[in-house]
Amino acid sequence: MKDGFSKLSKEDKLKKIAAQYNDPSQVTQEFMSYWHQQMDVQKRFDEFSENTITNFYLPFGVVPNVLINGKNYMVPVVIEESSVVAAASKAAKFWADKGGFKTEVISTEKIGQVHFLWHGDKQKLTKAFPELKKRLIENTLHLTSNMQKRGGGILDIGLVDMTMHEPDYYQLKASFETCNSMGANFINSCMEEMALILTDWVEQKPDFDNEERKLHIIMSILSNYTPGCIVKVWVESKIEALHSAAKGLTAEEFVWRFQKAVRIAQLDVYRATTHNKGIYNGVDAVVLATGNDFRAVEAAGHAYASRQGKYTSLSDVTVENGHFIFSLTMPLALGVVGGLTSLHPLVKRGLELLGNPNAKELMMIAASVGLANNFAALQSLTTIGIQKGHMKMHLLNILNQLEANQDEKKRAVEHFKNHKVSLSNARDFLTTLRKNMMTNL
Amino acid sequence: MKDGFSKLSKEDKLKKIAAQYNDPSQVTQEFMSYWHQQMDVQKRFDEFSENTITNFYLPFGVVPNVLINGKNYMVPVVIEESSVVAAASKAAKFWADKGGFKTEVISTEKIGQVHFLWHGDKQKLTKAFPELKKRLIENTLHLTSNMQKRGGGILDIGLVDMTMHEPDYYQLKASFETCNSMGANFINSCMEEMALILTDWVEQKPDFDNEERKLHIIMSILSNYTPGCIVKVWVESKIEALHSAAKGLTAEEFVWRFQKAVRIAQLDVYRATTHNKGIYNGVDAVVLATGNDFRAVEAAGHAYASRQGKYTSLSDVTVENGHFIFSLTMPLALGVVGGLTSLHPLVKRGLELLGNPNAKELMMIAASVGLANNFAALQSLTTIGIQKGHMKMHLLNILNQLEANQDEKKRAVEHFKNHKVSLSNARDFLTTLRKNMMTNL
Repeated sequence: MKDGFSKLSKEDKLKKIAAQYNDPSQVTQEFMSYWHQQMDVQKRFDEFSENTITNFYLPFGVVPNVLINGKNYMVPVVIEESSVVAAASKAAKFWADKGGFKTEVISTEKIGQVHFLWHGDKQKLTKAFPELKKRLIENTLHLTSNMQKRGGGILDIGLVDMTMHEPDYYQLKASFETCNSMGANFINSCMEEMALILTDWVEQKPDFDNEERKLHIIMSILSNYTPGCIVKVWVESKIEALHSAAKGLTAEEFVWRFQKAVRIAQLDVYRATTHNKGIYNGVDAVVLATGNDFRAVEAAGHAYASRQGKYTSLSDVTVENGHFIFSLTMPLALGVVGGLTSLHPLVKRGLELLGNPNAKELMMIAASVGLANNFAALQSLTTIGIQKGHMKMHLLNILNQLEANQDEKKRAVEHFKNHKVSLSNARDFLTTLRKNMMTNL
Repeated sequence: MKDGFSKLSKEDKLKKIAAQYNDPSQVTQEFMSYWHQQMDVQKRFDEFSENTITNFYLPFGVVPNVLINGKNYMVPVVIEESSVVAAASKAAKFWADKGGFKTEVISTEKIGQVHFLWHGDKQKLTKAFPELKKRLIENTLHLTSNMQKRGGGILDIGLVDMTMHEPDYYQLKASFETCNSMGANFINSCMEEMALILTDWVEQKPDFDNEERKLHIIMSILSNYTPGCIVKVWVESKIEALHSAAKGLTAEEFVWRFQKAVRIAQLDVYRATTHNKGIYNGVDAVVLATGNDFRAVEAAGHAYASRQGKYTSLSDVTVENGHFIFSLTMPLALGVVGGLTSLHPLVKRGLELLGNPNAKELMMIAASVGLANNFAALQSLTTIGIQKGHMKMHLLNILNQLEANQDEKKRAVEHFKNHKVSLSNARDFLTTLRKNMMTNL
C-alpha cells in the first residue's frame, strides 16, 4: 500500500481502502452509494482533489428572509451543526421586520508579499526603490492587464524594512484589487514574478557593490490577512422594538443584558473565542455554499480580532438615546469567479439563488448571516440559555442515535415540547415508552 | 414566502426555492439528483439541520502512509481545495521514511463559564466560595456522574474576579475532562445548571445583605478557547536526510531557508495568518471527515496564536548539532462520540478507517496532517515556489520576452525541467546557448 497510492485508479484506491475494513464489499457498496448517479457529474467532483473515493455529504439548506440594504435574499448555507440555520433564520426574520441588515463594504484591498534577505546599504535600496517599483509594475503587466481591464490590478507596492526584527529581512508588499475573484492565484503569480524581477534588478544594479547585488528570496505569496478588505454590517432599532426578542424580559432589561454580553466578549478571550466562533457558524455556512475557502476566512478574521494585542469580539453594540445598534466589522476576502465557483454545480446554483452577486455583495451577505447568528446566540444566552433551543433542535439526532422508530420519534417530539431534552432524558423516555408498549401488547 | 418557511415539508421548501430560478423543474431535478438513493439514509441527512433541501458534496479522500508514533494510518480527509491532499500525502510519505510523526497530547482540559454581575463585599464572596464550590459539584452530579464513570467530569471550579475590567463582573470558571466527547453539550448543561445553583445559593446566603443576595447571570456556556487542551506533534531528522526534499538545493541551504520562513511567520502577522491557514487546511480536512466542528477548532487555534499579544506562527523549527526538528503545538478539542460522529455514516466509516481512535489519538492524527501540510507548503515556498506549474508555463512568456526562436525555446524548456526558472537564468541560458551556436557555425 505504501507506494504510488495516488497513481492508482479510483477503483483501485477504493479497493485498497475497503481492504482496511472487516466488510470490504459492504464498505465498497456504501462508499459507492454516495457517488452521483451521472458519471460526468461525479467525475467533476473526483477531480477537485487527490485520492477522492466518494462524496462527503453536508446539508445544503437556505436561510430565507435575509433583508440586506433593502433587498431580500434566500441565502444558501452548508453546515453540519444543528440549529445554526434555524438560529440564523429566526434572527434574519426578526430583523427583516425592522429594516433588515444595513451593510457597507469598507475596503477590498488584498496583499501579497515577497520576503527576502538583502545585505547592504539600506539608504541605497530605499533611494532606488521608485525605479524598482516602476519596473515591478511594468514587468508584471502581462499578468495584470486582464485584471486591469476589469478595474483591478496592483494598487501599490511598498518596500518594508523588517531589519529591526531580523537581520537583512525586507519585504516587497504589494496591494491588489482583485475585483470579483478572491485572487489567490493571481496574487501568487504576481508575487513570484516580482521575486524574479527583484532578483534580476538587484543583480544588474550598477551602483550596488558585489555584496549588494546578491539577495535571497525566501518566499513569495499572497497574505490571507486582509485588514484592508473589510465589510461592516449592522442592525438597528428603537429599544422598545426589541420587546419581542426579550423572551419575557422587558426590552430595556434585554438590551442591558445584551450589552453586558458583548462587553464580556470584548474583555475576555475565553468568551471572545466562542462569541466569534458563533459569528463564523453563519459566515462559513455561506462561504462553503458559495465555493469559497473557509480556512482563509477564519484565519483572517481571528487574526484581525487580535490586531490590538488582545483577542477580542468582532461585533459591537451601542445604545444611545433609546436607539440600539448592533454591528459586526470583519475582513472577508471572497470571490464569485474562479476556484470552485464555476466548477461545483451546487455552488453555481447557490450563487444563482443569490442573483449572481458580485464579490462585494457576497461579502455583505455572508457578514449579515454572521451577525444574524451572533444576535441569535446572544439573544438565547442572555435570556433562556442556549441548551434549551439547541437540544430541541438536536432531539432528532439524539433519537436517531438511540435508534428510535418513526412512531417513537413522533411521541418523543410531542413529549419534549414540555420537558428538558438531554441524552439521558431521551433514553429514559424511550425505555419507559418501550416498556409500556410491551405491556400493551 | 415570508412566513413559516421552516414549517414547510422538504418538498414544499424545494418548490419554493426552485421558484426563484428561471428553470424551476430543471433545478428541482438537479437538487434531487444529489439526494441519497436510500430514503432512510437521506432522511438522516435531512435531520442534521433545518431547511435542508439537498446534500452539498465535498470530496472525501484519504492521506495514506501517515506514520504516527510508530503506527501507520490512512487518514480520511474532506476538503474542497485542490492540492491539499496531495501535499499532505507527499509530506506524510516523506516523513514516514524518517520515523514519521511523533506526537504527544499535552493536556485535555476544557472550560465552561458562568458570567455574572454581583455587587457586594468581595471578601465575603471569596471567603464563602469553597462552600459554593462544594455545592456546585454536588448538585451537578446528576449531570456529571456518567462522565465520571468514564473517567471525566468537573476538574475544578474557580471564582474569577473581573471587577477591575468591568464593575461587579465575576465568573465561575469550571474546567472539565470530557474523555472521548468534545463535550460542548455536556459543559453547556453543567454551566446552565451551575448558574441556577449559584443564584439559589446567593439568594439564601444568611450572611449576605439584601443587596448581596441578588445577582445577574448574564450567560452560561462553554468556552471554545482551550489553551489547556493541547497537542504537540513534530518530525525530526539529521539535516543531510533532508536532501531529497531540497529540490536541487543542498540540504543545508534548504534547512536555512526553511528556518527563515518559519522565523518570518513568527515575526509578521501577514505571513503568520497564511502560514497557520495552511496548517488548518490539513487539520480541518480531518476535523470535517471525523464529524467534528471546524469553527470551534479554528477559533481556538487562532486565538491561541495571539495569546502572547501578537498573532504568530503555531509551528516552530529548531536546528541543533545538525539535527532538524519541526514542531506544531496547538489546541484541539475533538470528540469521537456524540455530535455527528455516530450519525453521519461516512464519519463512522472514517473513524473506523482510523481504527476507531479515542479523542487523544484523533488530536494527534489531525495535528500530524496539519504539520504535514505546513511542511509541504514551506518546502514548496522556499524552493520552487507554489506556482511551479504556472512558472513552467510562464517560461515560454519569459522566452518570448527574450525573443527566443522555436529551437531555443525547445532547448530551454528541456533545460529548465531541472533548473529554476527565472528571468536572469533564462537570459544566461540563452546567452550561453547563442555563444555556443556561434562557435559551432
